[in-house]
Amino acid sequence: MKEPSALTAAVLVIGDEILSGRTQDINMAAIARFLAPFGIDLHEARFVPDVHGEIVTAVNALRARHGYVFTTGGIGPTHDDITTDAVAAAFGLPVEPHPEAMALLASRYKPGEFNEARQRMARVPQGASLIKNPVSVAPGYQIGNVFVLAGVPKIMQAMLEDVAPRLARGAPVISRSLTVRLAEGRIAKELGAIQKAHATVSIGSYPFFAEPGLSAFSGTTLIVRGRDAPEVVAAERAIVSLAASLGVQPENGRNP
Amino acid sequence: MKEPSALTAAVLVIGDEILSGRTQDINMAAIARFLAPFGIDLHEARFVPDVHGEIVTAVNALRARHGYVFTTGGIGPTHDDITTDAVAAAFGLPVEPHPEAMALLASRYKPGEFNEARQRMARVPQGASLIKNPVSVAPGYQIGNVFVLAGVPKIMQAMLEDVAPRLARGAPVISRSLTVRLAEGRIAKELGAIQKAHATVSIGSYPFFAEPGLSAFSGTTLIVRGRDAPEVVAAERAIVSLAASLGVQPENGRNP
Repeated sequence: MKEPSALTAAVLVIGDEILSGRTQDINMAAIARFLAPFGIDLHEARFVPDVHGEIVTAVNALRARHGYVFTTGGIGPTHDDITTDAVAAAFGLPVEPHPEAMALLASRYKPGEFNEARQRMARVPQGASLIKNPVSVAPGYQIGNVFVLAGVPKIMQAMLEDVAPRLARGAPVISRSLTVRLAEGRIAKELGAIQKAHATVSIGSYPFFAEPGLSAFSGTTLIVRGRDAPEVVAAERAIVSLAASLGVQPENGRNP
Repeated sequence: MKEPSALTAAVLVIGDEILSGRTQDINMAAIARFLAPFGIDLHEARFVPDVHGEIVTAVNALRARHGYVFTTGGIGPTHDDITTDAVAAAFGLPVEPHPEAMALLASRYKPGEFNEARQRMARVPQGASLIKNPVSVAPGYQIGNVFVLAGVPKIMQAMLEDVAPRLARGAPVISRSLTVRLAEGRIAKELGAIQKAHATVSIGSYPFFAEPGLSAFSGTTLIVRGRDAPEVVAAERAIVSLAASLGVQPENGRNP
């Protein structure tokens, strides 16, 4: 039910460490929540390993399809930090040291400590504009519609502050959550009819279980999302009526 | 540094709720950890919204490239559960009720409660084999090299038990973690040389910060991964020697 005019974004999470399951990614969801007030929908995400060709392919696929692309990971000083070379290759651009990044980093380290490896963190695709890193100095950067951010969540989130002023703004999605103590299979048919009657919103249905036993569904969280506020409210009311017809009072919010 | 002979897998996470950032995905990492002892590498993951064409495209891209594909989400009874139709479309197969799934589900509900919506959960692409769901009965299924699993993490994880006997086995990746109280920029050059000297392993470098201040790196976790045990150990020893040459004793394991 996404409107064609909606601004869209994609996230590209880069790193063997995430794909191995050792490190839980939290950047994707953080970026999605950051984008929501701008009216920008995270429409797709890809996770790729530290492999040059995989990053190049994913960057090119995503930047062609979406208004914005956010990459996380692989911009540090070590041999496994290959994001910058891959992003540059995706754009067909050379990589070069950014004078401002060089100056920022040089002032961060003691004399003699700004070594060759650390100087790698000042390399960007030609023409990229820096993204501030208030946590650990080494900047991210923007090239075209691609924002190249750190993988460490606290740094990534801090960098988003400098991304914000660069984003277009669309109508934000309004969402309402209702929790009903009804199995989703019991209301599925009527819920489908409500969805059909309110085509500009999307209604998601998410079952949850009684704790501690898991033998039966104990309820459903329903999430109505859309950009047309009256329609969101109308769909929400229809769900409240449906629940009431089955003798159930919906609770606001989601199942914790 | 992935060996070409390694078995690979991809995960496809389906659902608006994950992409909106409201719900944190934990299935991708759980599947990666489940696959590791089989010697199967999670090589790629994609997250797509509840949009038919997006699911079809992703399933076809992933099943052509990887030994196994695991999808999560979208197999419930409601209108937003469109995974089965999309997977069937990806394979060019019709969807039909699976007799065993119909019987399982019929026996789960009280008379009259096994309604049309719930019967949707017995629909599978023609020729699919069921995957047991010991939590809430409604099964997943396998079609070709694609395993279609529930989105609720506890159900998804329980379904993996019935997936296990169907998987091929390769040489598992051995990994070692070392934590050094050294900034990664200080050891980056030497670490790159160790990586070059041990080309069958991959060495990942992950900085972490002193708490509570975030003004400087306080150390680095190094993870050596590979299928050749002596090479993994040799690379690990080289890292220990590097740290020792800088007066630092590595700790086993990762930074918490």
